[in-house]
Amino acid sequence: MAGRSTQPGRGVVAKALDVLDAFDGARDGLALTELSRRAGLPLSTTRRLAADLVEHRVLERLPDRRYAVGRRLWRLGLLARVQGDLRDVALPFLQDLYDATRENVHLAVRDGDAALYVERLHGRTSVPLVSRAGGRLPLHATGVGKVLLAHAPQDVVSAAVAHATKATPYTITEPGRLLRELAEVRRRGYARTVQEMTLGTCSVAVPVVDGDGAVVASIGVVTATRREPTRHLAPLRVAAGGISRALHHPLA
Amino acid sequence: MAGRSTQPGRGVVAKALDVLDAFDGARDGLALTELSRRAGLPLSTTRRLAADLVEHRVLERLPDRRYAVGRRLWRLGLLARVQGDLRDVALPFLQDLYDATRENVHLAVRDGDAALYVERLHGRTSVPLVSRAGGRLPLHATGVGKVLLAHAPQDVVSAAVAHATKATPYTITEPGRLLRELAEVRRRGYARTVQEMTLGTCSVAVPVVDGDGAVVASIGVVTATRREPTRHLAPLRVAAGGISRALHHPLA
Repeated sequence: MAGRSTQPGRGVVAKALDVLDAFDGARDGLALTELSRRAGLPLSTTRRLAADLVEHRVLERLPDRRYAVGRRLWRLGLLARVQGDLRDVALPFLQDLYDATRENVHLAVRDGDAALYVERLHGRTSVPLVSRAGGRLPLHATGVGKVLLAHAPQDVVSAAVAHATKATPYTITEPGRLLRELAEVRRRGYARTVQEMTLGTCSVAVPVVDGDGAVVASIGVVTATRREPTRHLAPLRVAAGGISRALHHPLA
Repeated sequence: MAGRSTQPGRGVVAKALDVLDAFDGARDGLALTELSRRAGLPLSTTRRLAADLVEHRVLERLPDRRYAVGRRLWRLGLLARVQGDLRDVALPFLQDLYDATRENVHLAVRDGDAALYVERLHGRTSVPLVSRAGGRLPLHATGVGKVLLAHAPQDVVSAAVAHATKATPYTITEPGRLLRELAEVRRRGYARTVQEMTLGTCSVAVPVVDGDGAVVASIGVVTATRREPTRHLAPLRVAAGGISRALHHPLA
């Protein structure tokens, strides 16, 4: 089974994923040379794979000849269960939370050493942010990330604390202070950040638990710093409770 | 270039996409035999490809051994430009529209012979629907679909009219009546449906135009039939105008 007939196939899927991964942070498109460099593949391999992916509409060719991720991959991605379960269950509650706050509303899960943003709702009056659905941000520097980190396994916490870097001058990265803050997040049941990820913004976030009480996600609200985020704690907790119950009793 | 070294690669990408396409309408997972049947591939090929895709976290193996689309594909799909441009531009306006109506809000584009739902917002009080982001519905039977069809090329209209099927007893499929309705949609600037896609629901939808006045998308509101949907025309038109202007002047 691991002979000549299967080996090329393995290689192609792995390389195609290297090509697709290269578009993280480059949604406006990549030229072939940049795509090759980011994917860590030879130019000729990249050109052949990219042409193949364009032919199958997984990638698109922009008018300026750069490559971009195509609509077909977007459609396929939305078939994933991360959407089917947590996102679909949570969306009406997130919508209610947005109604109540008119601020940026986030739903995030831990994906290894990062907070993966499953959904972001925001309106015209919400403060602009770098977060987006499908994007990843550091666990230690965001509200939802701190909640997820506070309930992560010890090895994840150790690695995050050891490698914490400053996104702004206000990001808490000192190991002792960060660990004390995570204990505080567990104790009081919410995280609060001020200008740790984006200057001029602050956040508050709470855990979403499953039927066994395990923290499976976090929801948070991000506002401009002139507004105290903890005033949104009550609707946040109501929404988190609703999502937790809906995850526990899918038919309720 | 089309020799032995590239041919296996082409085959693998195409077959992997056949496997992934099989999950359309099957987000709860597929057993291997069903996956093989839907993908139109031999069982052994399907098993090998699925194992490869699981290894790369494109697919996931559920506790009951069925396969499902994995989180990695979801993340990759959200790198697509369909999200980066239209969806990101439109989302704040859709949010405002939801605020104003508390009903299901849809953003759709034409994808060949179907309406592709780019976004769906809804709250706890909105009527349940079959639509979802990334899903496709017939052009002739939905509000946003009728708007897109009314502004589609003649060959698309001819094919849609010739192949229109009934989703409910109320779906308009008679060619003459459907064509007259499309002309009416163009004349009055909106589409209105009553129980044509889902019993008990009705919809109203308007076009979103680009800088050249071409219809590039449609937004619509779906309500329970006891509420007249055209009362939502005013906020719909305001939101469509806002999206159109933002598409035209990205920095405005």
